Amino acid sequence: MYIAKIYVTYKPSILDPKGESIKSALHRLNYETVTDVTMGKYFELKLEADAATVESTVQAICDQLLVNVNMETYRYEIEALEVQ
Amino acid sequence: MYIAKIYVTYKPSILDPKGESIKSALHRLNYETVTDVTMGKYFELKLEADAATVESTVQAICDQLLVNVNMETYRYEIEALEVQ
Repeated sequence: MYIAKIYVTYKPSILDPKGESIKSALHRLNYETVTDVTMGKYFELKLEADAATVESTVQAICDQLLVNVNMETYRYEIEALEVQ
Repeated sequence: MYIAKIYVTYKPSILDPKGESIKSALHRLNYETVTDVTMGKYFELKLEADAATVESTVQAICDQLLVNVNMETYRYEIEALEVQ
């Protein structure tokens, strides 16, 4: 059993309106030290796969469903889980 | 300059409808090895703060704006950035 942690963010060239809104809100709340905010998505997937296929499965899932590869970029970590 | 990476997910007792939808979609796409999907939010904040205050600032920002503490839980990592 594996757990894949996937982080999806906009590519740097793509405008991130939610991030900009949050930055404005933080400045209004007097958190002036915040200079930049990016908002993305975070997925945790549990997979009953074997070590040889888990990474290619995660990449295929990202490319096919979770990530808009035109606008977004992603990174992931895969950890083995102990089976009880 | 610091970068804070913040991961926000629903508490385990809260229904995660987006995660359930993604799991169903993955099963329809024949990714039957996926047993569980959680969808959350991911924030990256850049802060011009000093080491003594950066962690308390990040916690205050999460509690006040980024996280609904009734339904969501969060974890964060803070890294120092080299200033060019």
